Amino acid sequence: MHSIDLSKYNCRTDLIIEKDRVGIDNKHYEENGIGVDVMKKDNNSYVTISFKDITDKENFKNVENIFIKELKCLLKSYISDNSKIMVIGLGNSRSTPDSLGPEVIDNILVTRHLFRLGDVEDGYLNVCSLKPQVTGVTGIETGDMIEAVIDKLDIDLIIVVDALAASSISRVNRTIQITDEGIAPGSGVGNNRKELSCKTLGKPVIAIGVPTIVDAATIVSDTMHYLLKQLSYKIVNINSAKNKLINEKYFDYSKQNVIFNESDKEKVLGVLGGLNDDELKTLFEEVLTPINYNLMVTPKEVDYIVSKLGLLIGNGINKSLHYSFNPTK
Amino acid sequence: MHSIDLSKYNCRTDLIIEKDRVGIDNKHYEENGIGVDVMKKDNNSYVTISFKDITDKENFKNVENIFIKELKCLLKSYISDNSKIMVIGLGNSRSTPDSLGPEVIDNILVTRHLFRLGDVEDGYLNVCSLKPQVTGVTGIETGDMIEAVIDKLDIDLIIVVDALAASSISRVNRTIQITDEGIAPGSGVGNNRKELSCKTLGKPVIAIGVPTIVDAATIVSDTMHYLLKQLSYKIVNINSAKNKLINEKYFDYSKQNVIFNESDKEKVLGVLGGLNDDELKTLFEEVLTPINYNLMVTPKEVDYIVSKLGLLIGNGINKSLHYSFNPTK
Amino acid sequence: MHSIDLSKYNCRTDLIIEKDRVGIDNKHYEENGIGVDVMKKDNNSYVTISFKDITDKENFKNVENIFIKELKCLLKSYISDNSKIMVIGLGNSRSTPDSLGPEVIDNILVTRHLFRLGDVEDGYLNVCSLKPQVTGVTGIETGDMIEAVIDKLDIDLIIVVDALAASSISRVNRTIQITDEGIAPGSGVGNNRKELSCKTLGKPVIAIGVPTIVDAATIVSDTMHYLLKQLSYKIVNINSAKNKLINEKYFDYSKQNVIFNESDKEKVLGVLGGLNDDELKTLFEEVLTPINYNLMVTPKEVDYIVSKLGLLIGNGINKSLHYSFNPTK
Amino acid sequence: MHSIDLSKYNCRTDLIIEKDRVGIDNKHYEENGIGVDVMKKDNNSYVTISFKDITDKENFKNVENIFIKELKCLLKSYISDNSKIMVIGLGNSRSTPDSLGPEVIDNILVTRHLFRLGDVEDGYLNVCSLKPQVTGVTGIETGDMIEAVIDKLDIDLIIVVDALAASSISRVNRTIQITDEGIAPGSGVGNNRKELSCKTLGKPVIAIGVPTIVDAATIVSDTMHYLLKQLSYKIVNINSAKNKLINEKYFDYSKQNVIFNESDKEKVLGVLGGLNDDELKTLFEEVLTPINYNLMVTPKEVDYIVSKLGLLIGNGINKSLHYSFNPTK
Repeated sequence: MHSIDLSKYNCRTDLIIEKDRVGIDNKHYEENGIGVDVMKKDNNSYVTISFKDITDKENFKNVENIFIKELKCLLKSYISDNSKIMVIGLGNSRSTPDSLGPEVIDNILVTRHLFRLGDVEDGYLNVCSLKPQVTGVTGIETGDMIEAVIDKLDIDLIIVVDALAASSISRVNRTIQITDEGIAPGSGVGNNRKELSCKTLGKPVIAIGVPTIVDAATIVSDTMHYLLKQLSYKIVNINSAKNKLINEKYFDYSKQNVIFNESDKEKVLGVLGGLNDDELKTLFEEVLTPINYNLMVTPKEVDYIVSKLGLLIGNGINKSLHYSFNPTK
Repeated sequence: MHSIDLSKYNCRTDLIIEKDRVGIDNKHYEENGIGVDVMKKDNNSYVTISFKDITDKENFKNVENIFIKELKCLLKSYISDNSKIMVIGLGNSRSTPDSLGPEVIDNILVTRHLFRLGDVEDGYLNVCSLKPQVTGVTGIETGDMIEAVIDKLDIDLIIVVDALAASSISRVNRTIQITDEGIAPGSGVGNNRKELSCKTLGKPVIAIGVPTIVDAATIVSDTMHYLLKQLSYKIVNINSAKNKLINEKYFDYSKQNVIFNESDKEKVLGVLGGLNDDELKTLFEEVLTPINYNLMVTPKEVDYIVSKLGLLIGNGINKSLHYSFNPTK
Repeated sequence: MHSIDLSKYNCRTDLIIEKDRVGIDNKHYEENGIGVDVMKKDNNSYVTISFKDITDKENFKNVENIFIKELKCLLKSYISDNSKIMVIGLGNSRSTPDSLGPEVIDNILVTRHLFRLGDVEDGYLNVCSLKPQVTGVTGIETGDMIEAVIDKLDIDLIIVVDALAASSISRVNRTIQITDEGIAPGSGVGNNRKELSCKTLGKPVIAIGVPTIVDAATIVSDTMHYLLKQLSYKIVNINSAKNKLINEKYFDYSKQNVIFNESDKEKVLGVLGGLNDDELKTLFEEVLTPINYNLMVTPKEVDYIVSKLGLLIGNGINKSLHYSFNPTK
Repeated sequence: MHSIDLSKYNCRTDLIIEKDRVGIDNKHYEENGIGVDVMKKDNNSYVTISFKDITDKENFKNVENIFIKELKCLLKSYISDNSKIMVIGLGNSRSTPDSLGPEVIDNILVTRHLFRLGDVEDGYLNVCSLKPQVTGVTGIETGDMIEAVIDKLDIDLIIVVDALAASSISRVNRTIQITDEGIAPGSGVGNNRKELSCKTLGKPVIAIGVPTIVDAATIVSDTMHYLLKQLSYKIVNINSAKNKLINEKYFDYSKQNVIFNESDKEKVLGVLGGLNDDELKTLFEEVLTPINYNLMVTPKEVDYIVSKLGLLIGNGINKSLHYSFNPTK
């Protein structure tokens, strides 16, 4: 079995934030069942909001409120009353799982043209928006278009929204990430892109991302992990009277630690049991890729979810920027 | 480990055809890399067309030609020059992976209203179409709407198109199925539906389906299977000079038989190695369902694929029914 | 000039309500600048709500409130707590000026399927919806489809929504009409249709219509009429100091009576001055039709307007039927 | 009656080309019932292609062929094998009559990103595309965005497509205009725009426009003109036996000259008869504007027409630029 090549090739770091899991000044809190992680490292902030279900009306409101609170907090050191802001929706409007960016833009309140006319009430900032579409559709490198427009319009702050690939099945459509580090190449749903950050654009870039897709290898390696957790849970609770009353399909073992040692793991999962998470993912990529089954997939409710997320993030940005904004829509 | 409950609960038979894999009179042929299986059982025919890539122009043409040939063959015992035919596109037009049916209908050439006016050239049959939408959107049980309209319009033959859930990752968007058995309850992407068949509607029903979604548990159990195949391939070919020249990521082991005996399997996969396909799927369902991760997923290119499949099946139906049909579009 | 053929051919009566302008029991009231005419004749009621601008948020609310009040009033003799109601959106969803019906349906809250499950709160009626599309798209005569479904589902009341052709430029997108007489053939934007009424369907039919198109001949004859009004206004007010201060482009002469006698009219408009409204329209039809310029047209903002009207009428129906309905959307 | 103010205010010159009707070097030809006018003035070319019906398949082909011939002719002095070309679709994709530009872009074959990779067959030019959307949606002045991107991408030639307002009812959806003069402010369907021309952008600009809307005042004044033509025709042909056999609704008088002198005209049309075309239009604007009825309108088939025109112009541009382009779609 030693012929399996387990040399870790660098796992794609899908989520902006996870690549630096070990920051300093980490903070975690929960509100209404929604988890928030705030991490600071090298002068950048990384916020991850984790939730269960955005389609529930009440939960939607709660997630929106946290999103606004955290976004405002991040924005406050970057904007003043005279800031010129551009909100950019990356992605392909014709491909639903990649259309989060354009969808958000459809919900953005723009005011730049009104500022030109000198006729804007208090409580509104100078905001414009851009949907650059993807290179395959326009022939234009997205980064080039953005650079050109940013310079010409003398923009002070960029907010960029994009759909991401998830590094774990648990993240898909259940996480919003915000960072002032900008967006890294290759993190989006489509093909590789130029880095969009203060370093490349010369202006601060707030990136907002939601993982909407995940690859098959990740699903498989995550499942191995959950299998060990479930077995651990069962062993630990084997004699619990309570559990005997619960239908096995519904007990929640998600917070159970894995209790197996290495040799136990191999007993359960054979060779697989001896591999760590990254090795497992690499292995499954090597199994699925040659036969074209390492599909990038998205949950079947993607149309509904992306529309809801587009509304939440779009209105969230509006409310974070314009304190007079109050949609009755 | 014996605490894992492996009682097979009845696995959902997603694909119309696979539930009766063992028919009589089976036939298999290949054409331009496209596989065709025709099975007959209890006076019903089941056709499965398997292909790799519908987005390639040439392949599209080839798949379309086979689809037309097989559909015509199936239709010929059910239609005459005077038949009144209704093509029904099941599914939800607002949910991309479930919108194949409505998408096909958008490509159907209808003539019923022209027959009323008595003004139709030779080579066209009497055809109308229906998109019943899903019950959650209309409040109406789909089967009731179809029954009502079929009776009122005195329809002789129903062709029903639907998106399906796949029983294997290899099927997703790579299989078209045709059968004169009708469509079974619960086989579609949406919720359970009434059976649509000659038995329930009193008229012959040709069902055309394409699996566009698959669940996570299926992805995982399929991957276990492919892992064993790949290992077998490597062992068998371990000293092949040829293989040393090929990048591991690109060798094709899909036709390799698994060479391990039961005890070998357990060495590789531990407890998992001792389970058969159905048991594996059941196990992974039991792991993923309680924590809501047994997602039904669809490949991220779903918009493009469904649009291509809608065109192929729509025009394929047109050409099968109207021999004078010749689109230049 | 006597060669002009002025034989009035029967002018298409586009608006449901205007064909019987002289009813009994007429009532007119105004609220927030919105006019309401209620007419009763032969046991039928005809309500016309006239407004200026649906795109203004406040006005939208006001029109919606009146619409709900009048619709409830009309509905109350037709529904009970156990009524099974179907809302039908006529028209072609692919043609914006004809898509009002389908657009309304997208906003209808359906409950029929929930009643089946026996699980509906108080304050909701049993409602389902149907978009029959147009005959050119389905091959099916719309009336046939409706009849079939009404019977099968044992519907007690039908509410049908359609886009209409206006008989006057002043009506286009500025009028909502409600009647319990049903909908007459040929009144819609598309081609002729079967009558949908209690007489043809055996169940009460409430029709809701908005004129979204008007033909060129109507625009021209209306303009002749407004020209005479404007001239009258100028003559009457020729020495008004106030008028001298108003930019001519903005004075409102719409309520001015025409003060010319027949011979004056001919002086201003020549032969045209001797014709009444119907004769004028006929004349212009005869001028424009042979050269294909009697276009049916719609204001260029049609996408926005139809979307707003669809929301207003859809939510208006929801609130009229379900007293517990309270969208936060 | 002298109180009618007939001071001609400057009539909006809607069509690019008509503002300079008197050029030199004019050429007119007809092919398959399609008229083509080519005018040269001050080193600029103005091409007008006039047709009856774009929805007929054969006519579509014919118009496309002429469009390609004329566009190629205009392009040839502006492009070389190394040209970098940008096709820009002006207008609002959410407003059907204004969506011609974006619709064309959806049909443009882009290659710029492939040139970057150095991997393009012979017969293809370097082409990219842009949909700037309208200022009300993005907050950005369209001209600013275009200037920025043109410079950054080092574009050599701009092709800009826009929907226009027609100066005559006969033009609506029945004319394609091409000019190398660029596009003037305020000629589009939306609000005023910056001029896009070689003068403002520093690079040659080919503008392609189709009038898709017309205002009510134009419809009325055109109708007055057609009324005089029809009466003239009747008088001239009063004893023609042939005409007696033709249903009045179908005779074609569109090429008839008006035979009335000024005093005859006044007899027919009263005061109106004494006004010239511009005065008539001004008068009707003054009648309709104060009461908000000088609507900008579009024929009710606008969705279908814009989709057809978008295909024709998009593919026409592709075929004019890439001689290897050959869609089978």
